[in-house]
Amino acid sequence: MKKIAILGSTGSIGVNTLDVIERNAAHFEVVSLAAGSNVDLFAEQIKKFNPRVASLFDASKIDLLKERLNGMDVEICSEEEGSIRVASEPDADLVVSGVVGSAGLVPTLSAIRAGKNIALANKETLVVAGELVLREADARGVKIIPVDSEHSAIFQVLNGENPKHIKRIILTASGGPFRTFSKEQMEHVTVAQALKHPNWSMGAKITIDSATMMNKGLEYIEAKWLFGRDVVVDVVVHPQSIVHSMIEFVDTSVVAQLGIPDMRVPIAYAITWPDRFEADLPSLDWSQPSNLTFEAPDYEKFQCLTLAREVMDSGETFPAVLNAANEIAVQAFLDEQIAFKEIPEIIRMALDNHKSEPIRELDAVLRADQWAREEARKLVGVSAHG
Amino acid sequence: MKKIAILGSTGSIGVNTLDVIERNAAHFEVVSLAAGSNVDLFAEQIKKFNPRVASLFDASKIDLLKERLNGMDVEICSEEEGSIRVASEPDADLVVSGVVGSAGLVPTLSAIRAGKNIALANKETLVVAGELVLREADARGVKIIPVDSEHSAIFQVLNGENPKHIKRIILTASGGPFRTFSKEQMEHVTVAQALKHPNWSMGAKITIDSATMMNKGLEYIEAKWLFGRDVVVDVVVHPQSIVHSMIEFVDTSVVAQLGIPDMRVPIAYAITWPDRFEADLPSLDWSQPSNLTFEAPDYEKFQCLTLAREVMDSGETFPAVLNAANEIAVQAFLDEQIAFKEIPEIIRMALDNHKSEPIRELDAVLRADQWAREEARKLVGVSAHG
Repeated sequence: MKKIAILGSTGSIGVNTLDVIERNAAHFEVVSLAAGSNVDLFAEQIKKFNPRVASLFDASKIDLLKERLNGMDVEICSEEEGSIRVASEPDADLVVSGVVGSAGLVPTLSAIRAGKNIALANKETLVVAGELVLREADARGVKIIPVDSEHSAIFQVLNGENPKHIKRIILTASGGPFRTFSKEQMEHVTVAQALKHPNWSMGAKITIDSATMMNKGLEYIEAKWLFGRDVVVDVVVHPQSIVHSMIEFVDTSVVAQLGIPDMRVPIAYAITWPDRFEADLPSLDWSQPSNLTFEAPDYEKFQCLTLAREVMDSGETFPAVLNAANEIAVQAFLDEQIAFKEIPEIIRMALDNHKSEPIRELDAVLRADQWAREEARKLVGVSAHG
Repeated sequence: MKKIAILGSTGSIGVNTLDVIERNAAHFEVVSLAAGSNVDLFAEQIKKFNPRVASLFDASKIDLLKERLNGMDVEICSEEEGSIRVASEPDADLVVSGVVGSAGLVPTLSAIRAGKNIALANKETLVVAGELVLREADARGVKIIPVDSEHSAIFQVLNGENPKHIKRIILTASGGPFRTFSKEQMEHVTVAQALKHPNWSMGAKITIDSATMMNKGLEYIEAKWLFGRDVVVDVVVHPQSIVHSMIEFVDTSVVAQLGIPDMRVPIAYAITWPDRFEADLPSLDWSQPSNLTFEAPDYEKFQCLTLAREVMDSGETFPAVLNAANEIAVQAFLDEQIAFKEIPEIIRMALDNHKSEPIRELDAVLRADQWAREEARKLVGVSAHG
């Protein structure tokens, strides 16, 4: 019986994780849950999975939650302190880090410091503080199991292989909705166009990140932290999103993981690893003619991808600035304050203006994050009024 | 230092194996070599790799070989006895079984009985006597490492995985030169047409087997023996021969091995396993637009594939009859005694006329093999004069 804690239980990763757990109820016990502010769903989850600890970030809704739970025997807590309590629950074997955005960083780091293995869906943890997180995880023998379909693919392919035999990682990218757009067409992209992702159904922020290919840039940074900073990571555009990523080994042999685009597969893998459980999901259908295509990404057109590769080379607090400035710029685009093509422009200006520092403690990261948000907001203001 | 014995050293597998060994000379020692009748090449190999034992099957050329070796200190032997001597050389850690045809069976079995791990390129060993060979290998803890690119792919993908998690094996097939031919066109296929394989450069017998898809049928049988008789093996046509095969696991996750079509990759893997050595070979190029297609095989058009699946269900000596009758029929086609479409017809008639028996000892297999050759020759005679 594996004991699971979930950070972000009412989000997409959390809901899918609980779905997998419910289908394999004999193998898992949910010991703690943390959510943001969705009281209705959170109360339901608590009643169904009966955790020892439950934390709702939004303190103003705690009374409402208690009312819904109607005297149920569960320790209720709140805010960041509550998330940390859930993440470091002594009984948990594995913490699923499914919070979106940099809010996931502190509780995930607490879980690592408490020696818990992590099923990591929160990109920011590694993008923003990869150096620190990996140092802490290595010191405690904590295993970080990726949930992102691309990193899960690479992790699966590495099973039984010597990481020293990696020649390069081939990170596949759908290319997003603007893969075939000309630079000219990219100038006039609307919010509605950018929100249409060809293969995956996701939240607004991540869908825009997919349209700018920043999503792949963040995954590039994650891959570097997860599989080795010295490992070559090449991005290849594969519009069908069937091949989730590949490794080429030193003997030129390439091993790839493929599957239907359903997050429940990598989520299940992360929580069942090193086991695999039978899934009641459709298989890839090879009986019908099918076509998998691959092409090089256009780094000129997708500046966000170029920026992500650059900040990984620069290191220190640059990736944190990239991530924070991107969050602000994407929100400004969604609010129709800036044009689509201004997203990478604002990030580049923020990076140009940044004085980086080495990451000795979390504070350096949080300072850079804070600074970048303010800087990006200023730059959005200038642009919106310029 | 891994000590290697090679059966079939002057054939395509043998030559490529020695090429890999030469490129990694610090890691391997060649302790024994067996060849058929190519004295010139064999003498060169012996001089270069300095084995303790060398066997030339063709006894009539032994004097010529000795003359070429000019008093060199090497034990020379001949015929089946010599192959057995090479295969069971006490010092050998691994025996590469690269002889083509059923001549590979007896020495390979001797190697297994001597407790040697086997790098298996000889298809017939498993097709004809899989039951016996696996029983003997299991009893001695002998590892059989496949060299065929498809089975090597499956073997590589299974690295670090639990075989119980296999949902099905997806064996890829190029589809051969007649993939897009109509049944009508297939009636008039010439030897020259059948000898043109789209992706691999191979001997005449195996090229015809690829054209009839019997090659894939034999690989289907091999896969069943190597990875479990109860495992589902589906054949998928993939004309580019880049994906060498795949496994779908119980969680619907599919893992595939891909590579350039160069036998040195699976050969190197088989002799270096569980290690991988750096290869001085081109990588798959993802920077250029590329296209991988997949479609179901046409079992109606490719009767040899259907027959192979049937004999595996029937078991006993039926696979041995399929293999032997196919060898005779293919030779008759190459000799222009029968038409291309008669190859499966002759095999089916031989199978229909066969009284199978259980495989308790090698004799049963050899009897069935002998009977099937005579039967197929008779059927060829009837057809050629009919």
